[in-house]
Amino acid sequence: MLKIGIIGAGRIGKVHAKAASNLKGVKIVWIADPIATDLEETAKAMGIEKTSKDYKDILNDKDVDAVFICTPTDTHYSISIEALNSGKHVFCEKPVDLEIGRVKDVKDLVAKTGKKYMVGFNRRFDHNYKYIKERIDAGEIGKVQMIKLTNYDSPFPNVEFLKTSGGIYLDLCIHDLDLISFLTDKNGDEPLELFTWGSAFLMPELSEFGDVDTAIVTVKMKSGVIATISATRFANYGYDQRAEVLGTKGSLESRNDTPTNVILQNEKGVTGDKPFYTFLDRYENAYAEEIYQFVQAIINKKDSPVDAENCLPALKMALAANISLKENRIVKIDEIN
Amino acid sequence: MLKIGIIGAGRIGKVHAKAASNLKGVKIVWIADPIATDLEETAKAMGIEKTSKDYKDILNDKDVDAVFICTPTDTHYSISIEALNSGKHVFCEKPVDLEIGRVKDVKDLVAKTGKKYMVGFNRRFDHNYKYIKERIDAGEIGKVQMIKLTNYDSPFPNVEFLKTSGGIYLDLCIHDLDLISFLTDKNGDEPLELFTWGSAFLMPELSEFGDVDTAIVTVKMKSGVIATISATRFANYGYDQRAEVLGTKGSLESRNDTPTNVILQNEKGVTGDKPFYTFLDRYENAYAEEIYQFVQAIINKKDSPVDAENCLPALKMALAANISLKENRIVKIDEIN
Amino acid sequence: MLKIGIIGAGRIGKVHAKAASNLKGVKIVWIADPIATDLEETAKAMGIEKTSKDYKDILNDKDVDAVFICTPTDTHYSISIEALNSGKHVFCEKPVDLEIGRVKDVKDLVAKTGKKYMVGFNRRFDHNYKYIKERIDAGEIGKVQMIKLTNYDSPFPNVEFLKTSGGIYLDLCIHDLDLISFLTDKNGDEPLELFTWGSAFLMPELSEFGDVDTAIVTVKMKSGVIATISATRFANYGYDQRAEVLGTKGSLESRNDTPTNVILQNEKGVTGDKPFYTFLDRYENAYAEEIYQFVQAIINKKDSPVDAENCLPALKMALAANISLKENRIVKIDEIN
Amino acid sequence: MLKIGIIGAGRIGKVHAKAASNLKGVKIVWIADPIATDLEETAKAMGIEKTSKDYKDILNDKDVDAVFICTPTDTHYSISIEALNSGKHVFCEKPVDLEIGRVKDVKDLVAKTGKKYMVGFNRRFDHNYKYIKERIDAGEIGKVQMIKLTNYDSPFPNVEFLKTSGGIYLDLCIHDLDLISFLTDKNGDEPLELFTWGSAFLMPELSEFGDVDTAIVTVKMKSGVIATISATRFANYGYDQRAEVLGTKGSLESRNDTPTNVILQNEKGVTGDKPFYTFLDRYENAYAEEIYQFVQAIINKKDSPVDAENCLPALKMALAANISLKENRIVKIDEIN
Repeated sequence: MLKIGIIGAGRIGKVHAKAASNLKGVKIVWIADPIATDLEETAKAMGIEKTSKDYKDILNDKDVDAVFICTPTDTHYSISIEALNSGKHVFCEKPVDLEIGRVKDVKDLVAKTGKKYMVGFNRRFDHNYKYIKERIDAGEIGKVQMIKLTNYDSPFPNVEFLKTSGGIYLDLCIHDLDLISFLTDKNGDEPLELFTWGSAFLMPELSEFGDVDTAIVTVKMKSGVIATISATRFANYGYDQRAEVLGTKGSLESRNDTPTNVILQNEKGVTGDKPFYTFLDRYENAYAEEIYQFVQAIINKKDSPVDAENCLPALKMALAANISLKENRIVKIDEIN
Repeated sequence: MLKIGIIGAGRIGKVHAKAASNLKGVKIVWIADPIATDLEETAKAMGIEKTSKDYKDILNDKDVDAVFICTPTDTHYSISIEALNSGKHVFCEKPVDLEIGRVKDVKDLVAKTGKKYMVGFNRRFDHNYKYIKERIDAGEIGKVQMIKLTNYDSPFPNVEFLKTSGGIYLDLCIHDLDLISFLTDKNGDEPLELFTWGSAFLMPELSEFGDVDTAIVTVKMKSGVIATISATRFANYGYDQRAEVLGTKGSLESRNDTPTNVILQNEKGVTGDKPFYTFLDRYENAYAEEIYQFVQAIINKKDSPVDAENCLPALKMALAANISLKENRIVKIDEIN
Repeated sequence: MLKIGIIGAGRIGKVHAKAASNLKGVKIVWIADPIATDLEETAKAMGIEKTSKDYKDILNDKDVDAVFICTPTDTHYSISIEALNSGKHVFCEKPVDLEIGRVKDVKDLVAKTGKKYMVGFNRRFDHNYKYIKERIDAGEIGKVQMIKLTNYDSPFPNVEFLKTSGGIYLDLCIHDLDLISFLTDKNGDEPLELFTWGSAFLMPELSEFGDVDTAIVTVKMKSGVIATISATRFANYGYDQRAEVLGTKGSLESRNDTPTNVILQNEKGVTGDKPFYTFLDRYENAYAEEIYQFVQAIINKKDSPVDAENCLPALKMALAANISLKENRIVKIDEIN
Repeated sequence: MLKIGIIGAGRIGKVHAKAASNLKGVKIVWIADPIATDLEETAKAMGIEKTSKDYKDILNDKDVDAVFICTPTDTHYSISIEALNSGKHVFCEKPVDLEIGRVKDVKDLVAKTGKKYMVGFNRRFDHNYKYIKERIDAGEIGKVQMIKLTNYDSPFPNVEFLKTSGGIYLDLCIHDLDLISFLTDKNGDEPLELFTWGSAFLMPELSEFGDVDTAIVTVKMKSGVIATISATRFANYGYDQRAEVLGTKGSLESRNDTPTNVILQNEKGVTGDKPFYTFLDRYENAYAEEIYQFVQAIINKKDSPVDAENCLPALKMALAANISLKENRIVKIDEIN
């Protein structure tokens, strides 16, 4: 029985706790959060025995095999280091840190401790994107030429949250930047240069602190593949999440998932369901699969499917995008180090 | 240059005249109609030189090679006979007649005169249905098991018209009954028994004269294939025209044609175009192809693609449906003779 | 904590056990099966403490609140009676029994004991069909005119199983017949007459014992609604499960669920995923929702969402279909009593 | 009767001649081409009375009202000038010229002569794109944020042709660049800056003369709208032509047109028709509508729907893209003058 402690009992902490609690051979024994007012309630609902305001109680528990770090981004690094040093396997929400050097520190410590370290890039576990990668890697569309990703968020975010989010590239587009890595990694492709434009249509106040709510990012890969991301902080019809890949022998395109497959035809048109409204609904299965794979990696002593190193390209691209937006220029990925 | 005379200048007469006027090697020289008040206007707009109130003027013109009979159903038979006896090729709107014996008369006269005779079952020339038949005949779905046809009419018909229409089976479903023949004719299959139920939801007054506005017809073929038609006199979202065929190796399904392929996503849903509103828009290409094939049959001395005999199964089934509805029983097609 | 015993550890027993084990406030304490060789293994994997070859051990356990009857059809009735008499709530797989009188016995005993009794018509809990019913009941498509259901099974069934299945109507179409009840029950509509034709294309040997593998069933409701079901024992492209409802103000249509929403475009066409291959995958969510609703009905003392009486129309229609096929005639539902 | 002369009897000359010959009130009286070996044949098939190797014969014919310039691009300018000076209305294939100054010359001469001058940007007349523009202009998706266009060509082009085509931006993407103008012109929006990356995957020899076969172009508009084009010289599944527009109140997306709407389901998947294979099939209706609108502008003395000035933004953007690719930098549209 693998014993798990959850660090951070906010929204994403609960998502992962629920996914883990459905797995056989896994027992969540701790949940810690310094401020959550519903901590006891959450623990009870999930059948978790122990709670604490201090995550160190979890790290100090010798019986705990693995921890899930579901805290604010600026604590991911330090808790990761402590947890690895405590001999725990670690599942850490994305991103590990905003500094390349620190991510490398984690990577080195993982190598030293021999523990599993996995980063929460959930979209790699989505049924649609996984299927696209499998088809690409099987050569079904030949040599990839272009990748086009759509990431329109929903629901409408809170401006206060956005001020501390790190900006659209580090907070939102990093998922797509990671998908670009994921979809092209088979032959060791990597990003060379990046360019972006953005605008603030929905929340003009964002421009006051250098952020945007609408952006198109283009990435040129070493292989010549050109990838583009279109992103917005809010689409009023729901969480619009799609990918298209063109290759020399065909294309792959994922359409949105929807709550039902029912079509209503009436005088107004032929109307189907909107996409799911939030990432929690859209990626419910991806979250479950992600935690399942983490547990499998530990139990079966396999490589972590998304380790600290795997995250570096997305982080570098997101940091490059910040510079590109600010300076209105092409940024070479090599500038980020 | 093939010289054509149009008999009947109503809606369908104009459709066929327009289709013929776009064909190379064809010249429409006459148009006749005893009552059309816009006859001269129509002739001028189409570049047709001669008009008459009397179709016999066309039959008497030695230069005319072929006529299109676009008059009310109860005149189709007698004009067909006269036209064939005048040495004209004949394109006649469906149905030839409501009596089996008269259709056989026409068939015999066609054989005797050696002229081409074609009946206007336009759906046989529709891109979707033709493609389905080609795939079936090529064996792509194996042995056919079931055929399911949807025929929801639009716009809302005039009750006065319906009183004289011959009823839902002879007027509307005859197209589907003919499609059943068309889709199954390769190996000489034929209808054995038929059953129908109907209801009057949209125009309850229809039940006063034994008609319905909503009907499901089921046909059992000699081969064991079971075919079903769902029909209504009006769907408020447009002219809904679809076919599905299940075979032992797969299925074929035609979805509706629409004016555009644009999808609008907003707070109300994901909304595409409604189907076309009327048969004239939906089957514009089928009407053009139909007339093209008639002209090709004459010029290249090929068999008429839909001759008088081809129409008999649909007529027999429609007459059987009338009996089935009235007597609430299964009717054997052999009863109709 | 609601304590549950599972009677029958075959395929469907495991499905329900899994659904129940994911629910909070529920504990499965027993699983019984007289012949399952993997009973201990199943119990261990699900964390179920007690096993037995004899279901009476469960009925005799005072701590058990509810049982799931997942045994062969011919035992449903007697175990239901015993379980109710033992003071248990009962979830029973469909059908309760093939005799109308026995279903009424169960209904009477349920009323007398005050226990919850639910029958496993899982499609009532499917996201697509539930959504269609909600739209109909909200009046969004006006007055219903026609219902058209598609039920193509997959994978290819074992002929030996089919010989004891009760035939295509009682085994397969009963789900659709129940959907007809479900979709029309708001205003107390009920079936009046039924007619069916069937053929044996896939397994000609079925005809030897009066069964078919391909069938179209048509039902006339008291309200005039006409419903039709097209069914086959196997579609080679997967489990094809769809519904269409036409009303005076619009139509509703559910398309198939698919494993992914990815489209591959290449020289062969524009190809999407096939439907799910089996009912277990297609209706996974429906099974979970069904068990959730059963538990909720017990905990919150609400009516069972599908009680013994709710099942009578589907059973009567299936029995009528057997007669209709055998005697090639319309059967009045009143004949079945 | 409007009398027309066709200058250039190649592929596109025939397309326009056919479209014009189907219009009432129009007569094509001349067709000229210096090298076409099938000139007489084409004239005969279309019912055109006069032919010539020298287009000046058409310009000298006082009876001719309008000419269609369907010659190679490098002759568009001089023939346009001559034709306007001869008092003819002019329909000219895109582009008018590759020099901005010459396009302005044409614009000035049109103003002076009072003749109609229309440029053949056919996509403005396509049913899907027209519908999208109408919805945008009606405010249905609120304020536009992003435009995403897909232009994958088919069939595989001849490398010899590509060497003289002017490159992917002037030859292929110019249609999309014009669509960006078209979709944003209501409030006087205009392009500010442009950036592109390209690769030569399909025909590596293109890179020898500075061209590419795969490109992503991004345009920033004065209003903040960001538009992106993904283009390739060949998609093996057909001519893939789509547009997406995101606004603050919703999105619009056009899917491909296809020859039929038939879906084949079998063991390989759920397969629909590929897009049309060539621009001639895909845009057949757009070409017809374009010529119809040109004729209507003349007859009804309305403004040309696409005059010389309307074409300038697309031309400037295409020239900017050439610089952007060559110098790997953002190009301001103001640099092009």
